[in-house]
Amino acid sequence: MPLLVQKYGGTSVGTVERIQAVAKRVAAERARGHDMVVVVSAMSGETNRLLAMARAIHPNAPPREVDVLLATGEQVTIALLSMALEELGCPAKSYTGAQVHIRTDNVHGRARITAIDDGRVRQDLASGRVVVIAGFQGVDEEGNITTLGRGGSDTTAVAMAAALKADECQIYTDVDGVYTTDPRVCPQARRLERITVEEMLELASLGAKVLQIRSVEFAGKYRVPLRVLSSFDDGPGTLITYEESKMEQALISGIAFSRDEAKLTIKGVPDEPGVAYRIVGDVAHANINVDMIIQNVGADKTTDFTFTVPRGDYRQAREILEKTAVALKAREVRGDERIAKISVVGVGMRSHAGIASTMFRVLGEEGINIQMISTSEIKISVVVEEKYLELAVRALHSAFGLDAETATVVPLA
Amino acid sequence: MPLLVQKYGGTSVGTVERIQAVAKRVAAERARGHDMVVVVSAMSGETNRLLAMARAIHPNAPPREVDVLLATGEQVTIALLSMALEELGCPAKSYTGAQVHIRTDNVHGRARITAIDDGRVRQDLASGRVVVIAGFQGVDEEGNITTLGRGGSDTTAVAMAAALKADECQIYTDVDGVYTTDPRVCPQARRLERITVEEMLELASLGAKVLQIRSVEFAGKYRVPLRVLSSFDDGPGTLITYEESKMEQALISGIAFSRDEAKLTIKGVPDEPGVAYRIVGDVAHANINVDMIIQNVGADKTTDFTFTVPRGDYRQAREILEKTAVALKAREVRGDERIAKISVVGVGMRSHAGIASTMFRVLGEEGINIQMISTSEIKISVVVEEKYLELAVRALHSAFGLDAETATVVPLA
Repeated sequence: MPLLVQKYGGTSVGTVERIQAVAKRVAAERARGHDMVVVVSAMSGETNRLLAMARAIHPNAPPREVDVLLATGEQVTIALLSMALEELGCPAKSYTGAQVHIRTDNVHGRARITAIDDGRVRQDLASGRVVVIAGFQGVDEEGNITTLGRGGSDTTAVAMAAALKADECQIYTDVDGVYTTDPRVCPQARRLERITVEEMLELASLGAKVLQIRSVEFAGKYRVPLRVLSSFDDGPGTLITYEESKMEQALISGIAFSRDEAKLTIKGVPDEPGVAYRIVGDVAHANINVDMIIQNVGADKTTDFTFTVPRGDYRQAREILEKTAVALKAREVRGDERIAKISVVGVGMRSHAGIASTMFRVLGEEGINIQMISTSEIKISVVVEEKYLELAVRALHSAFGLDAETATVVPLA
Repeated sequence: MPLLVQKYGGTSVGTVERIQAVAKRVAAERARGHDMVVVVSAMSGETNRLLAMARAIHPNAPPREVDVLLATGEQVTIALLSMALEELGCPAKSYTGAQVHIRTDNVHGRARITAIDDGRVRQDLASGRVVVIAGFQGVDEEGNITTLGRGGSDTTAVAMAAALKADECQIYTDVDGVYTTDPRVCPQARRLERITVEEMLELASLGAKVLQIRSVEFAGKYRVPLRVLSSFDDGPGTLITYEESKMEQALISGIAFSRDEAKLTIKGVPDEPGVAYRIVGDVAHANINVDMIIQNVGADKTTDFTFTVPRGDYRQAREILEKTAVALKAREVRGDERIAKISVVGVGMRSHAGIASTMFRVLGEEGINIQMISTSEIKISVVVEEKYLELAVRALHSAFGLDAETATVVPLA
């Protein structure tokens, strides 16, 4: 019998009524002849309620106890969903992360799954039950409860699907799939029928927050067929694939962008080995994420060095850089918080030249100056003035043939 | 180091502030040089909140899933209390019932503890930690979460104390001890310094709902020194003992009563073997608890038969009895819902004659007619008209020398 793993997030199970709706959807798939494993999150709002109590007691609560506390959230949901399924005449059994032996390391708050024992689940499925599993949580070697951190329920679902060799892992969320870009910025955005895992990773890391990166990485590693769907609308969603289609494929799958960027330039540093490390290293040691890095060829045995950081870390990064500048006897430090990063993503660009030149031409025609450029095998990113973001996204969306024939406006996240 | 097991009920941990107050009390005992194990219930109101959601989903939810749901209540409390202890600089570690291996049978909703593995707890105590344990819950052989039913947290505390051979098991509640009778009925009631476990059992089963019977039985079986105290006032509470004091002891320890009684009489049934079974059996098969049973000596080869049932089951019991009466060709069925049961309890009566006669004389002097009498080794119970309840309790309390010198009015439960 084909096996589906479905995952429902906090919004999808946010009330008793929504839990009943999820039960109906699951029971219907079961009736269609699928073996069903369902992974659920805490009811929306519950995690915040619990954390508020914790914070009132301890400003910096021990992570082990925070995990004990938060794990109750999904435990409530698995019990209620199992009851709702039983009420529909659909035999069901719930498991906490510990009960289903989702073994993790002992890094509380962001544990990583190391092993899953699928014996119990297979036994329940064989006896005709729907298996309901608490997402986001596991258990370490010593029996301590752990949580997987943000998006952990997605990871649980993908890991279960991998362990059970499920036919498909369906992530139900409040959006109906992955879009070519954010429909709030570009009304012509359309839902992708399919996307490769590499494209998904590039889009996810660039701001399309449909799925957590870790779960997509996990899915890629174990080749789990992954589908993103809406729990509020019917529709096929977006399938994440691992092989490039043999059919002709669009060059570009989507356009990602981020406003959460700031740019820092240090000018006139010595053009000699070790300087790049000095500059980036000092910032990175402060736990600031350095994204794009560009070193221009300089003159007079000096060079200029530009990199981007998250906008919230701009001030701190600038202070660090001023100190580095003094130490390196650099000419000056400049910064700009009003920038945006725009990326075109697509596995198609591997075999097609000219994507970059098209991108630069389109932006030039719109009078948009490109401040930085960075490329990877399936992605080209540029930094532009923030005020051009919407114009640039729409122009590129159209130029790369992504526009929907009829506009669909669904918020992305 | 002396080891204390303390148990705090739902009211004692009902808010963040109360959890912090419990932490202070625990940390103070720790500072006084005690090894501390703390057993807690769900925050008051939490169990009802969870059950309301369950009922909205399934009128008769599967007991396994109800247990999964309810067990989250104590899990929240153990995490918060451990955080509160850590915040006070008192190292603490929480355990769910499953984590500390409180092994039970698989009767969901009213499981019985079969074994406890004390290894982890001893290890934590040895390393200087306070151990915080979720009451009310355990785990069966297959790893399913179970709950122990009403008062289960008391049972958890006593079982932990027995397993760890604790020096004392302290049950913190919202009353400051066991009273000679209910102070709301008799303002002269006073707190007992100590009471034997047998007396406690009789008083508990007769309506002094300070401790659950099962936990007292458990304490008696393993001879766990048990103390009932208030978490809101300081004070020594009441110690439950296992040996009769060598000092002179009051004949009577307390006076229990219950309004939750109704009386049924079947008249003129054949005075022959098997009849009692027919009458009581039919009622008991309907899961109605039959309490006092009296068979009067009859005439004409017939006899009369009277018994009491919980008042809520009166109508159903009467219907059953009417049918039995037809089958047995009995003369008539009579019933009375307006009765009360009053019991005097005390191990002292074992060695002293005359308790019964004193009791009957006192009631007679007050003009109170006794409808039924039943006796055990340390208890004499009578049934009287309900309207005489307060008068009877006060008269007996005084006659048996239980009155406090100064009145203390603290509600019993």
